Amino acid sequence: MQPIAVDVMGTDNGPTQIVAGARQAAEDLGIPVVLVGRPDALADTGSLEVVAASEVIAMGEDAASSVRRKKDASVVRAAELVRDGKASAMVCPGNTGAAMGSALLRLGRLPGVSRPAIATPLPVPGSTPTVLLDAGANAECQPGWLVQFAQMGAAYAAGRYGITTPRVGLLSIGEEDTKGSDLVKEANALLRNAAVWEGSGGTFVGNVEGRDLLSDRLDVVVTDGFTGNVVLKTLEGAMGFMRRAVVGALTATEEAAQASQHVLPLLVPLAAEMDPDSYGGALLLGVDGVCIISHGSSSSAAIVNAVRAASELVEQGLVDRLRRSVKG
Amino acid sequence: MQPIAVDVMGTDNGPTQIVAGARQAAEDLGIPVVLVGRPDALADTGSLEVVAASEVIAMGEDAASSVRRKKDASVVRAAELVRDGKASAMVCPGNTGAAMGSALLRLGRLPGVSRPAIATPLPVPGSTPTVLLDAGANAECQPGWLVQFAQMGAAYAAGRYGITTPRVGLLSIGEEDTKGSDLVKEANALLRNAAVWEGSGGTFVGNVEGRDLLSDRLDVVVTDGFTGNVVLKTLEGAMGFMRRAVVGALTATEEAAQASQHVLPLLVPLAAEMDPDSYGGALLLGVDGVCIISHGSSSSAAIVNAVRAASELVEQGLVDRLRRSVKG
Repeated sequence: MQPIAVDVMGTDNGPTQIVAGARQAAEDLGIPVVLVGRPDALADTGSLEVVAASEVIAMGEDAASSVRRKKDASVVRAAELVRDGKASAMVCPGNTGAAMGSALLRLGRLPGVSRPAIATPLPVPGSTPTVLLDAGANAECQPGWLVQFAQMGAAYAAGRYGITTPRVGLLSIGEEDTKGSDLVKEANALLRNAAVWEGSGGTFVGNVEGRDLLSDRLDVVVTDGFTGNVVLKTLEGAMGFMRRAVVGALTATEEAAQASQHVLPLLVPLAAEMDPDSYGGALLLGVDGVCIISHGSSSSAAIVNAVRAASELVEQGLVDRLRRSVKG
Repeated sequence: MQPIAVDVMGTDNGPTQIVAGARQAAEDLGIPVVLVGRPDALADTGSLEVVAASEVIAMGEDAASSVRRKKDASVVRAAELVRDGKASAMVCPGNTGAAMGSALLRLGRLPGVSRPAIATPLPVPGSTPTVLLDAGANAECQPGWLVQFAQMGAAYAAGRYGITTPRVGLLSIGEEDTKGSDLVKEANALLRNAAVWEGSGGTFVGNVEGRDLLSDRLDVVVTDGFTGNVVLKTLEGAMGFMRRAVVGALTATEEAAQASQHVLPLLVPLAAEMDPDSYGGALLLGVDGVCIISHGSSSSAAIVNAVRAASELVEQGLVDRLRRSVKG
């Protein structure tokens, strides 16, 4: 396997955590990794190869223009390594738009794919994650795009989590086919057509609601990129809020803290299961290559998981699965 | 004050909890209440007056046609009592669409209001709730409607929670004015116009994200009814999920349960603060009367809170505040 290309430059916090995670993936898991960035900005790269890229697209920069202008940006170079067969996947923590734009311009779309979508696994303790897409690539969507998201999401869930017949739901505001926005009603009608599912092996369970996202009766939830991104951030916010509130209540007074000292460790496994860092980040589905987009604030552990996920997706032949799913 | 009209018929669970809550509001809080429903279906109504209505619109029924067809439905009669000045507000647990339709047809819209919206308070422990609207009345929205939602939301937060200058955010997928759907970008531009806020006293803090919903730096969050409903149910689902997961982790083994018995009570106040039942239900803003829409599964405690909220909103002159906010 060609190495996983890790863009080490694009985060607000600098390359330290990213490099540490990449090294750990290489040294502990034996996954080949190549770093992409400014060599003079990197320390402690161990024995990892560094591909030099002189420019950086920062978190707040406008992605569309930066990707076109900064031809030697690390995120652009990472995509080129994949395009040229010198890397098998790209892992990009930082500016989501820049990673998307680089992948789209340098790797191109898979045949028949109208728009790539961001797929984010939502942790469901005790079960495989629910794959949410589009989690933010396309703020405005057409019904046919949602169908392709559904197909690609099913192919991804099948390959990544070994689910034979992934159950796909369409996010709406009521389970009835007649409820929801015009976009949802039209997409629902299209998804009811069994032929849609021939290439991916998925099955349509109908419209689902926000409260179903963390249930184990779904494998994939499809929505437009506006709703998907709002939902993702709402969930992240609510989980973080609850974590702080529970710890706060259990440590509010000296007495409470005393009583809680033996039970707080009981909550650690739950917190770990709910931690988005455990799931290797979001994946851009629909480009001709494996592209993982990680948080700009990724810890080294998150990078280890992202590199591991990238390598597994390459070995599982994700891109070929996606190709088949959409051509159906 | 004229009594609060409580529709006791529209829930799946029958009228028992609703009647009990209405009685408690009358007997313990001294709020005048009139029940609306089929007298033969009601027991234990105490000294409460019952206005007879022979028909019922059930939870699953199509609202638009039922409201027009069933002229003697309890929810329709409740709206008529408000229209005719015989009740000062309506409290309707059950079919949200039927409550909306009845209020819209019988009470009519406030002058200048394009579409009424559902406003739902999101619990923020340690702070006043964040008012989310539209939480589901309008799956498709126009930019100008969002402006009216913002105005009405600000007027509601000012009156209900005594906030001098309510901070209003527009839900989007990034804080920058240039991000989001076309709807959001156009609404953002309109909300930047200070004249919009003259009637409500609110102020626009710009675009906000899903993770800001439970923060104390916002009083009102505006969005379309599709996104709002998805977000609301996502939050409800996540909160319920976390509550079960935390209790599950703390009671998973005999040992854990033993260790946790003194700390579980520490979490009760938090659970109570996060319980949507504490906040009196959702409010339909933009009709010429006070209309509270409660869950179909409302407990008697939820009904007490809804009746109390209705009576406070009447006393605070909510409808006049709303009228001024939109005409502004």
